[in-house]
Amino acid sequence: MTAYKDLSKEELLELKSGLEAQFEEVKAKGLKLDMSRGKPSADQLNLSMGMMDTLTSGVDLTCEDGVDCRNYGGLDGIDEAKQLLADMMEVPKDNVIIFGNSSLNVMYDTVARAMTHGIMGSTPWCKLDKVKFLCPVPGYDRHFAITEHFGIEMINVPMTSTGPDMDMVEKLVSSDPAIKGIWCVPKYSNPQGITYSDETVFRFANLKPAAEDFRIFWDNAYCVHHLYEDKQDYLIEILMECKKAGNPDMVYKFSSTSKISFPGSGIAAMAASDANLEDIRSTMRVQTIGHDKVNQLRHVRFFGDIHGIVEHMKKHADILRPKFETVLEVLERELGGLEIGSWIAPRGGYFISFDALDGCAKAIVAKAKEAGVVMTGAGATFPYGKDPHDSNIRIAPSYPTPEELAVAAEVFVLSVKLASVDKILETK
Amino acid sequence: MTAYKDLSKEELLELKSGLEAQFEEVKAKGLKLDMSRGKPSADQLNLSMGMMDTLTSGVDLTCEDGVDCRNYGGLDGIDEAKQLLADMMEVPKDNVIIFGNSSLNVMYDTVARAMTHGIMGSTPWCKLDKVKFLCPVPGYDRHFAITEHFGIEMINVPMTSTGPDMDMVEKLVSSDPAIKGIWCVPKYSNPQGITYSDETVFRFANLKPAAEDFRIFWDNAYCVHHLYEDKQDYLIEILMECKKAGNPDMVYKFSSTSKISFPGSGIAAMAASDANLEDIRSTMRVQTIGHDKVNQLRHVRFFGDIHGIVEHMKKHADILRPKFETVLEVLERELGGLEIGSWIAPRGGYFISFDALDGCAKAIVAKAKEAGVVMTGAGATFPYGKDPHDSNIRIAPSYPTPEELAVAAEVFVLSVKLASVDKILETK
Repeated sequence: MTAYKDLSKEELLELKSGLEAQFEEVKAKGLKLDMSRGKPSADQLNLSMGMMDTLTSGVDLTCEDGVDCRNYGGLDGIDEAKQLLADMMEVPKDNVIIFGNSSLNVMYDTVARAMTHGIMGSTPWCKLDKVKFLCPVPGYDRHFAITEHFGIEMINVPMTSTGPDMDMVEKLVSSDPAIKGIWCVPKYSNPQGITYSDETVFRFANLKPAAEDFRIFWDNAYCVHHLYEDKQDYLIEILMECKKAGNPDMVYKFSSTSKISFPGSGIAAMAASDANLEDIRSTMRVQTIGHDKVNQLRHVRFFGDIHGIVEHMKKHADILRPKFETVLEVLERELGGLEIGSWIAPRGGYFISFDALDGCAKAIVAKAKEAGVVMTGAGATFPYGKDPHDSNIRIAPSYPTPEELAVAAEVFVLSVKLASVDKILETK
Repeated sequence: MTAYKDLSKEELLELKSGLEAQFEEVKAKGLKLDMSRGKPSADQLNLSMGMMDTLTSGVDLTCEDGVDCRNYGGLDGIDEAKQLLADMMEVPKDNVIIFGNSSLNVMYDTVARAMTHGIMGSTPWCKLDKVKFLCPVPGYDRHFAITEHFGIEMINVPMTSTGPDMDMVEKLVSSDPAIKGIWCVPKYSNPQGITYSDETVFRFANLKPAAEDFRIFWDNAYCVHHLYEDKQDYLIEILMECKKAGNPDMVYKFSSTSKISFPGSGIAAMAASDANLEDIRSTMRVQTIGHDKVNQLRHVRFFGDIHGIVEHMKKHADILRPKFETVLEVLERELGGLEIGSWIAPRGGYFISFDALDGCAKAIVAKAKEAGVVMTGAGATFPYGKDPHDSNIRIAPSYPTPEELAVAAEVFVLSVKLASVDKILETK
């Protein structure tokens, strides 16, 4: 394979005309494929249908502590659901609150609460002139949407292969009291599939923030979402690390069963120090009488315990793995050696992150769309939707069938080649 | 019956000694009864257990529009749930958003959103020096807790037999731009069981607020919660009245199935104008990917349609009616003619409101507690927990069994008598 940049203008033009012919053929097929969102497939949802049979009219819906799950009460979750999610989040049961169906909603509420009421007695953020968040990039668009919604200034921090650039994080967090938080997806990160190294977690736990109300928003969305049984990433548990470092209150951990049971009907949880949880409960008491305990019990009765979740996730992996491998195989086969893009083969999570030549991401996504393949919008992985290099594209292989995926991946690499040829031609 | 106030000091002292003897007897029984919260009984919850069998592993969870209920999406609810709740709320389907399990949470979020983002482009309330709410009293403690939590100043408006004092509401709302809302439970109100008259609703719809972002928070929690088939209150539908009056955006309607299906696992809804709903959706898009659609579908499959809900509510009424009648019978038999308290016999809802002699409510609640009967805290029906007359007590007859309730009611009237004798003796 010759790298595109080493081709002559004539060679590139010839290549382009061949690629364009291929593209017209593909376009003629009238495809309708979607690799835009990290959405489980119907096959994956079917794995949890047994949950529907756990609570029927003949079943006693009383919790272990005697509470009738159907009635009011149970502000922060039923004990057995706390235990299940605590084990998944690797924290003590008493450091967990169970919420409704959406951890995103919990994160939104956490920021909203800080805006109107501050954190553990600090000044409400809405009373401050400026509030800033650090945003490791590329990252999760819905995180960035929350901070943007509340007018919080977002500062890009580059991701490395071991997590965010910690030199930059340390420097900014320790010097600027307006920096109140950082968005993290520490395991199988969205979109790169990177797991933060031990050193990165250690450095997070040992931050010396200028703001007393600085919090790490640790969205461990993919904590048990491995693709392989034998190749798994390990992440140091940060709540304990923070406690050891004398920063017990510095982190909010989030997780949910959205990509374990049902995306719309799972249960979400938050883990934090006693002081943080009491602060949160004081608002929750006003906000609701309690979340859906029947659904909490349904999850507990179906999974039993953390081992049940681990076994269940192997079934998800069996469905997802071939899809990831299909995409990776096409990327390697079609783009290897061309030096027009790079990617990481993740061991878990829901995405493959693709870095195109600078200035090509938008053109690639547009090209793929022209041929009927919807990708996540270029720029979406950056705050304000602005990728300064116009380079990063998030590939979500979970939803299409393997057959659809093979076709979609071919369309994608073709789009990459076309956009790259055009870009390189500009310089010849 | 001679009114207590007409008894001589000697007669009162003799009466008191008899009541005290009675009280000691009751106390010796070591009762543990609870009339404090509007919590359905287990019998009522059992009415909905069939819902647990509607969605089993063999059932297709696809909505009418082809959406897979189990997956992400469906921000504002599935169509068939909108239709069901719209019929219950007497509004068009397109004017409804379906939320999670708690209408209280929806109300909290509505105030929180106004604090941080304003309403339809208005200045966020957190940027204003002063925000005020009108609070018809007695009213619902959890409403008042929300506005108190956000530092909103609450102004008492007396309830009359036809709803809030509308002269006062009109005067305040039209003259003070800091008044941004009013809490209403317009049908079978909490705690009095009063339904707003046609004229009251008409006057609400025709308010001329000084604040463009003034909203009526219309919590129609008891819309189908009748106690009798033949004696029902009717409430004019306010969304349409507001539209007719040229105030289409002035009202937020709230409701839920909490006291229809399961208090912890029902579905909540909001109804408002297109412009209001679009304003709300613009925040919701950031806040969540969607609420629990499986539970929405479960409700639709169980109830079928609004007729199903109406029939279902008759079963609730059959359980609740004897409980209300037990309490009312004891009140009438034991307190009738004594002029030491007044109450209204409601035709629906969850409460009986009792007005004691001024300065007696706290003493009565304390007395009842001494004998093992927990009432809603005196003052709870007023903002900041402060009943200026220390007179109102909310009685919640739904949770205890009829047998327990008969005993609890006897304890209550005994407590009323004792506290009243003491109060009147002060003046002799």
